[in-house]
Formats: sequence, C-alpha cells, structure tokens
Amino acid sequence: MTKIDIDPQKIEEILNRGVHEVYTKEELREKLLSGKQLHLKLGTDVTGPLLHLGHSVVHRKLRDFQELGHKVTLIIGDFTTLVGDHSDKVDVRTESSTEQIKKDEQEYKQQFFKTVLEEQTEIRHNSEWLKDLDFNDVINLAKQFTISQLLEREAFMIRYKAQKPIGLDEFLYPLMQGYDSVALKCDVEFGGTDQTFNLLAGRKLMPVFGLEPQSAMVMKLLTGSDGRPMGKSLKNYIPVSDNPNDIFGKIMSTVDEVMFDYFELVTRIPMTEVLEMKQAIEEDGENPMKFKKILAKDIVTFYHGPKKAVEAEKEFEKTVQNKEVTKANTIEVSTHGKMPVLEFLKQAGVSKSNSHIKEVVKQGGVEVDRKKVTDFTQVIDFKEGSVIKFGKRAYYRIK
Amino acid sequence: MTKIDIDPQKIEEILNRGVHEVYTKEELREKLLSGKQLHLKLGTDVTGPLLHLGHSVVHRKLRDFQELGHKVTLIIGDFTTLVGDHSDKVDVRTESSTEQIKKDEQEYKQQFFKTVLEEQTEIRHNSEWLKDLDFNDVINLAKQFTISQLLEREAFMIRYKAQKPIGLDEFLYPLMQGYDSVALKCDVEFGGTDQTFNLLAGRKLMPVFGLEPQSAMVMKLLTGSDGRPMGKSLKNYIPVSDNPNDIFGKIMSTVDEVMFDYFELVTRIPMTEVLEMKQAIEEDGENPMKFKKILAKDIVTFYHGPKKAVEAEKEFEKTVQNKEVTKANTIEVSTHGKMPVLEFLKQAGVSKSNSHIKEVVKQGGVEVDRKKVTDFTQVIDFKEGSVIKFGKRAYYRIK
Repeated sequence: MTKIDIDPQKIEEILNRGVHEVYTKEELREKLLSGKQLHLKLGTDVTGPLLHLGHSVVHRKLRDFQELGHKVTLIIGDFTTLVGDHSDKVDVRTESSTEQIKKDEQEYKQQFFKTVLEEQTEIRHNSEWLKDLDFNDVINLAKQFTISQLLEREAFMIRYKAQKPIGLDEFLYPLMQGYDSVALKCDVEFGGTDQTFNLLAGRKLMPVFGLEPQSAMVMKLLTGSDGRPMGKSLKNYIPVSDNPNDIFGKIMSTVDEVMFDYFELVTRIPMTEVLEMKQAIEEDGENPMKFKKILAKDIVTFYHGPKKAVEAEKEFEKTVQNKEVTKANTIEVSTHGKMPVLEFLKQAGVSKSNSHIKEVVKQGGVEVDRKKVTDFTQVIDFKEGSVIKFGKRAYYRIK
Repeated sequence: MTKIDIDPQKIEEILNRGVHEVYTKEELREKLLSGKQLHLKLGTDVTGPLLHLGHSVVHRKLRDFQELGHKVTLIIGDFTTLVGDHSDKVDVRTESSTEQIKKDEQEYKQQFFKTVLEEQTEIRHNSEWLKDLDFNDVINLAKQFTISQLLEREAFMIRYKAQKPIGLDEFLYPLMQGYDSVALKCDVEFGGTDQTFNLLAGRKLMPVFGLEPQSAMVMKLLTGSDGRPMGKSLKNYIPVSDNPNDIFGKIMSTVDEVMFDYFELVTRIPMTEVLEMKQAIEEDGENPMKFKKILAKDIVTFYHGPKKAVEAEKEFEKTVQNKEVTKANTIEVSTHGKMPVLEFLKQAGVSKSNSHIKEVVKQGGVEVDRKKVTDFTQVIDFKEGSVIKFGKRAYYRIK
C-alpha cells in the first residue's frame, strides 16, 4: 500500500502553481486530503511526437502528484489516431498506420518519462474500450451534448464563423475522450487551456454512468522564446530531449518578459524565491541575466542532473557570454591576406549565398578578433591566428 | 420474374404528379425505363402510428411504382425508436418499449397496407444492421458530413437561431437513415419535403460504399382541412382508417382552396379531368360542391370500394346537405312547452356548460325545425315532434 502524502502546504502549492483553473479546486483539495491514492489521467495522440517544455508544464504537474504518491494513466489515443484520417473512403484502414502508431508511441514514451515517473505510470490504449462501443452507445453519449455547446467551443466557433468546414466526426472527439475517463474511472484529468472542453466532457459523462465526476486540472500555456505560446508549428520550442548546452542556450535567448512564467511553470523553485528575484530586477535594478541563468541551470538540472547543468553554464559563459573561442567550436581555414570582408567570408565558405553573407554583415553578425565589421566591402588584412565570428556561434580561425 | 411496365406516359405521370422534386428526374426516368425491377425504400418510425391522408401521398406514390411492377421495402426504424428517448441516463432500456414497438408496428402495417400493396412489400427493421455498426463505423459515416451542412437544414437552423437545444444525437439521425439505404442497396427513397435532407444523406453515403446513389423522390405536403399542412398535432387530419361516412364528411368540410391539391395528391383521377373541373369553377362559375363530392367519393372508393362510397355520399346528402333527420342520428327528449331556448337546451342536456350552449346559439349553430335561432333568451313553444339541431350534427326530437 502506497503511503499518500497529505501535507496541506504541498497540496496548496499543487492546486495553484501554474494552474489556470481547476474544476473544482475545493473538490480536488478534498480528494487530495482524503489520503486515497488518486487515479490521474492524461490522454494524448502520438502522431509525430516531439515533446517540448510546453508539454512539460502538464507533465511536471503530474510528477508533483506522483511525488505525493498518486498514480498516472497515460492514455494513448490509438483509436482516435486511427480514425483521424479524413479520407473520402469508408472502411479503408492501412496497416502502415498501425505500425507508425507503435513507433511513435515508443518515441513518445521515451520523452514523456524524462518528466514523469515511469514506475508510477500505467499505459493504456483507448482502442481497448472504444472499439467495443456500438452505434447505440455512441448515440447515448451524443445525447449528453447539444450542438450549441459544441459550437461554443472557441476553436470550433472560429472555424464555423470563418466558414471553414468542421467534420461531424470532430464533434465526436470530446465524447471519446470523455468516455476514456468513464472506462478508467479517473479521479483527475490534466490538460492545457485548449483542452478545457474535453476535460469537462469526461466530468459530464461520468455521473451518467453512475461514477463520481473527475476533477479537471487546466494548466497555463507556456510562452515560447518569441513571446507566443510554445508550439511546434511556431518553431519557438525547446524539446525535452535537447542536450544540456542547447537547453541552456535556448533558455538564455528567450525574451526577458516570459522568464518568470518559466520559473512558475517549468521549475519547482519555491514561489517565494521566484518573487524575490522578480522584485530584485524591478526594484533594485538587478541584471535579469543573473536570474535567467538560475532558470536555465534549474531546467538542465531537472533533465540532465546538476553536473551537466554546471558544465552547460560554463560552456555558455565561454562561448556566448565571454565569447571565448574554444577549439571545439572553431573551424580552421587557411584563407588569409588583404581582401574585402565579403571576399574572405566567401573563400572561408561560411555560406553559399552571397546575399545571406551580406545580410549577416549588415546586421552586425560578423566580428574579426572581437571587433564588429558591418561593411562587407571593407578591406582587412586577414592574418594567421585571427578569429572571425559569423552569425550567432560560428567561429573561423585562420591557420 | 416480374414483368416491369415501362410505358413512357405512365412513367412521366409518376415522375411529376404530386412531386415536389426528384434527385434527379433524368436519373430516375432512366432507371424506370430500364425494365429493371427497382427497389423502393420508405423508412418510418412507428411510435403511436396513426396514418392519415397526409402520409398517403407518399404511400400512393409507392403504390404507383408497385403497379409498374417494382417492389417496396418498408423499413421500420426500431433502432431509431429505441434510442429516440432522451433520458438523462445512458444504458437504460425498458422492455416495455420493445413491446410497444411491436404493437405499434402491427397497427402501422394494418394502416399502411390500406394504401400500399402488401404482396409487393418487404418489411425490414433497421436494428438488423445498425446495431452492428461500431464507433469506428459511426465516425467514418460522420466524416461525410460537416456541421454547416447539418445546421443549414431548415428545421435545425430554426431551432439553433431560436437558441433551442439540438442534441448531438439528432445530427446522427441522417447518418442512420442514409446507412439504411447502403445496407439495403435501394434504388429510390421516398419522403415528404421535410425529409429531403435525410433522403440526400443516403444518396451521399452510397457511393462511399461503392454503390450507385439512390434516387430521391420528394413529395409535396398535403394541406389539412384548415389550409395548414396536415398533421396529427394540428388535428386537421383524416385517418386512412376512418369509416366511409367520416372520410366523406371530412373531405366535404375542407376549405375549397385546397380541393385541387387533394385531387392531385390523393386521387389518381387523370390530371386532364382535374384541370377541366378547376376551369369549370373558375371560368363557368360551377359550384365547387359538385366536384368536392367527386373527390370525396373517389377517396372513399379507394379505401372502401364503390358501394360504400355511394352509401357515404347518400348519407352525407341526407344528414348534412339535405339536413334530413334520420332516426339513427337523433336523440329523443321529453322536454317541451314554452320556454327560452337556453332553458330548453339545458333541460334536453345538449351540454353541461351554459356558456358553451350560449356560444353555439350565438354562432348560429341552433335550429328549431330548420329555422335558425340566434338569441338564447328567445321564448319558443317547444312542441312534440319538433326537431332541434344543436351544433354540426346533433339532432334532438321531442317525443
């Protein structure tokens, strides 16, 4: 029998940190304080899995619950994925897609368990129960929802108003996801704000089957490096599988404005400390860089341990901050002599595109021995031992 | 092997008489001319069946096709009916409803075969195939329709705009009905204008399953005695199970304006003759009553044979038209003497409600020996042998 931690302070932290909304907080608090082991649910499709820090917000919340002793069921939406293909033929099912799902699932798990504790997680596939539902069952689920309720869902309403087609099958998705909770008798389901409707679908269906409604924990969405929500399509994401140097570097290059959202959502540094840091910047004029390093180091520590985090910090300071050129990150070139900057860079082979080279020079991306050169026609005497920086982190040393 | 009649003139009549729209007329004409025996489909729910002349419009059209040699499948929507109950519990299925469906089905058939030829009709239940569809099948059917297409359906849009709830299950109904056509490989489906969307759903789904799309024959709706579409809820209907006198009487009491719609939709009197009658009224000032009798007699003849039709006409002429009071339709009362009309009627027991009696008198519904009395305070000497008419067809004779 697992011992369940019911420390009220930890529970309050879990109920609030990074949380957008809980349906309902009172109800979930009671469940957490009861000492009963809770059954947590996360559902996911696994097509082309690439988990990034955006996903990790929900996953770390699962981890928090696990650390109190609760158990997670990860539901692989293999049923949803199989029927997800909008072809114009019915009954066409390709074997390859089943294979692809298996492969994707392996990849997904590998990344998922970087954040979530594997030993407290069970994996299930929703085809196990959804394939057994018949037309009559579907109709009875459908009766629980009205067209207006479904259309009022923001994502649908936007498409409806823009006269973009919404398949009737798409309206069946919340039913499926909701029924997953019925089949597994979940206590809490997790998701981001975009999942609110689906989480509440489960909450709505469970009492129809005589079950206690699940609580729904809706997490805030993480902002990407550019200030927009982190997502694969925006290319502003940090994969959880990144190596320490990449995670560190990418965190350091996010805009300052979102730093404290990252602290709240992706670290577990006590919120009191986080607020003190914020104050130090706002009131005492402290350099944000100092705290961003703490952030980056904490995240790398979570994924790669403290040793790698220290190394990543040093590497960052050397290559980026102190602009120290190490052998490891420098390409040796034999080009030298007096010539225009553009000519040198062409011969050094920094890029195949002349216009790209000119652009980088103009934008201040080129340095010769740490001195910026912004005119690509400028003639310079390139000497042995000189270091030429091109773009963000490419170094060329003349041998 | 049934011999199929391909007389082009009969086919043109079938394609046009009482027809609102055919999808498509060219396609169906080709099928009818091919000499192949066509498989006609009519789907129906059988809850509380009471077939009236409004339904008979479609049924007579089926009969027309049968008379050319084609065969009908009547689909009893037992699956639809079973799931039709909007309760707040899933999986609750009462045995009684199955029993009720059986009973209703017997009643339905009895009335249905008053119009349609039983020997050329097969009866099927859509539970036979719909109960075998699983969630995946439902999703694949659902993919063929968009939310907009379903919402654009007039009946749904009206409710949506009025913010009246539409259950998601209701959006699944056209899929069921459409799949019935797939399961039975129908050639033509029939319905009234309110069924257009459902008929086209079958037409849309069949090619997805590699079948030739069914033709859809949409019939005009029959107007009731009061000029509104005939329907049970409006209480303006004429049941096909009515006795000859009632059918005759109710046809005679419909408003003149709809008489020729009845000729077109509910009789098979040649349209040339129908148009001549119309002309005779409009141009030669003929009395519509004369033609309405032809209409009533024709409909009674169809349901009860020519002998009963002649009797019904005579009965109508006696009791209503000639106001002849027969022993059979008269109640004997012993009240007599000088008294106000109201007093007499009260004593004769024509109604328990004084205000109702006053109302009938004021509206000219009371006659004493064929003389109208419109003042209920008028004092009359009620004598033995007098006949007092109250309302439309109640007669009282003083003994």
